[in-house]
Amino acid sequence: MSFSFSFATASQVVFGNHAVNKVPDLISGYGTKVLIVTGKNPERAIALSEKLVPGTEVFFFSVESEPTTHQINKGTELARSTKCEVVLALGGGSVMDAGKAIAAMATNPGDLMEYLEVIGHGKALTQKSLPCIAIPTTSGTGAEVTKNSVIKSPENSVKVSLRSNFMYPDVAVVDPTLTYSMSSALTASTGLDAFTHLMETFVSNQANPFNDMICREGMQRIARSLAKACKNGNDEAARADMSMASLLGGMALANVKLGAVHGFAAPMGGLFPIPHGTVCASLMAAVMETNIEALKEKGHSVAKYDELARILTGSELAKAEDAVVWAENLITELNVPSLAAFGLTPDDFPGLVQKAKAASSMKGNPLELTDEQLTWILEKSL
Amino acid sequence: MSFSFSFATASQVVFGNHAVNKVPDLISGYGTKVLIVTGKNPERAIALSEKLVPGTEVFFFSVESEPTTHQINKGTELARSTKCEVVLALGGGSVMDAGKAIAAMATNPGDLMEYLEVIGHGKALTQKSLPCIAIPTTSGTGAEVTKNSVIKSPENSVKVSLRSNFMYPDVAVVDPTLTYSMSSALTASTGLDAFTHLMETFVSNQANPFNDMICREGMQRIARSLAKACKNGNDEAARADMSMASLLGGMALANVKLGAVHGFAAPMGGLFPIPHGTVCASLMAAVMETNIEALKEKGHSVAKYDELARILTGSELAKAEDAVVWAENLITELNVPSLAAFGLTPDDFPGLVQKAKAASSMKGNPLELTDEQLTWILEKSL
Repeated sequence: MSFSFSFATASQVVFGNHAVNKVPDLISGYGTKVLIVTGKNPERAIALSEKLVPGTEVFFFSVESEPTTHQINKGTELARSTKCEVVLALGGGSVMDAGKAIAAMATNPGDLMEYLEVIGHGKALTQKSLPCIAIPTTSGTGAEVTKNSVIKSPENSVKVSLRSNFMYPDVAVVDPTLTYSMSSALTASTGLDAFTHLMETFVSNQANPFNDMICREGMQRIARSLAKACKNGNDEAARADMSMASLLGGMALANVKLGAVHGFAAPMGGLFPIPHGTVCASLMAAVMETNIEALKEKGHSVAKYDELARILTGSELAKAEDAVVWAENLITELNVPSLAAFGLTPDDFPGLVQKAKAASSMKGNPLELTDEQLTWILEKSL
Repeated sequence: MSFSFSFATASQVVFGNHAVNKVPDLISGYGTKVLIVTGKNPERAIALSEKLVPGTEVFFFSVESEPTTHQINKGTELARSTKCEVVLALGGGSVMDAGKAIAAMATNPGDLMEYLEVIGHGKALTQKSLPCIAIPTTSGTGAEVTKNSVIKSPENSVKVSLRSNFMYPDVAVVDPTLTYSMSSALTASTGLDAFTHLMETFVSNQANPFNDMICREGMQRIARSLAKACKNGNDEAARADMSMASLLGGMALANVKLGAVHGFAAPMGGLFPIPHGTVCASLMAAVMETNIEALKEKGHSVAKYDELARILTGSELAKAEDAVVWAENLITELNVPSLAAFGLTPDDFPGLVQKAKAASSMKGNPLELTDEQLTWILEKSL
């Protein structure tokens, strides 16, 4: 009957087609020395830098794929030595994560390793990050409104988080037009990442009415627009829906623990060269199916999954299992590659199951799954 | 097809029964010198102050009703002279508005009048406010998540705002149990204030899908719970719904302009001793009716009002006009006093209409209303 929650997000969200044109004004409020973090193709960032207020000094730092500890250290060195006053991250989840981590380490003394979870000392950040403006060019991670950065440690074959309430970006600028050039495959995998954020927090054991509101809105948009955005990258309404859903997914995951999909995603992403969105897409239907069965076996309610099914199918008569069918059909329609394509074999299952059980996200799963249930998820997703 | 919006709120929202017990921990993160702003009855604030971390130095400042410029100056002097590090505001909208204004003026140089809208110089605040923790004891204003304080100037017979992005509280602690002791009449008038925030931003010409999400969630809760909370102040679910709706209303009004109800409320509240919630309650049905008719006359869509009616009545068949009937019935059921009871007469109408037309909130009204239409609203609401 009563409920509780906490909620935090970026200090300001600016959403809309061509919202990126507001960036020069936004930046000028923070300072004149800007570190621009970009992906492997810096063209858009260079074009944006040319529109900044005259007298603005710009430094570029490029991140080719998911950032490593080594790259964050290099970026931090650049930010510290040039005394940058604001970090602008323009790119996908990897770029925004890099920007947020560099903004945090620029103001916090010492080495990244002191603050990293799992492989580091997990010390709390003590200083507010440099002002950070995050501008997504994909629609999936929602990293523009989250408080962590996922960083790869090649030495440890693992992905870990730098996480702090100080790491919410100051401004999230979400401009759907920046996503139009994504390929159909990237639209699919990032979109399914966003879907998983919304789906897992909606059924999470930490779910709450504020987050439910966010998830319903986001999942409706994905249900009506993900396939359309994959088919036609210039579909204005579909792209806006996906950018909005990704933003909502970020708001959700920053405040509510996820579940088994993301429990598996962290160790899998560290061990195999599989894009995060693809991992999520491959696992989501099997995780939903397993959770529904496990809840029913224990006599628990599957009302949340029933509602999920109604939202996804648009049918008032849909039941929990229809959500699984919807997910399976979508994965087929969007040609999501299977995990086997990335070299995963059944020999890897026992190790992955143990690592997944220890993952932080797993704590949000609607109920605790057995080793057998977790192994079945991998078998089914291969 | 495309849409745009911006969104900002308190840095952190903590919601739930007994969430107030988290305040000592929250405060200790900000400093050891605390200014506690309270209403006329400081009992609850004293009890809370006794739970703060040992060594915390506490100063009290009490605000009896809607704060005046003189009171804000006095509170600012206290905060500045005692070098307070954090402001805690525990009370209704007046108390939270006072706390936010004092927190802002404690760090910004010079006099309040330099920064006030309309009667002052309207200068922008240049410094971030002192950390401010806002804890509502009513469920109406949503001031715990807004960026302005409404301040009375008795010399000018007007209420004006101190407004800045720096004024969002750092933490909004929303504890429904703090509202249980409100009278039925106060529950009604504050609850109808919350309703008006949601209703006016939902139909605002600045409405957007992110805000619509917030409004739908909040209005559903008001529709099912306001009358219940008025009848039984200890109804746990109804009180939680109303606290949540008030929070959502604050999030809405901080990001989307309101409409004619609030356009009238500012000058009326300055000229007559009418509680803000009562003004809103008295005007809302007539404003809805006038807007619906005016939209139809001009051939504009009333789809938003149709949806409003469906949300409020719970009937899929409801049409715009049913929302007006719902509002009229609720006002009757809750015994909201009419404006005449506070001394308002038809002689006041021409002056009020002119002042309302100039009010900032009026710019959010779905369409521009004529003097005749605005006058009819007052006649109908008397």
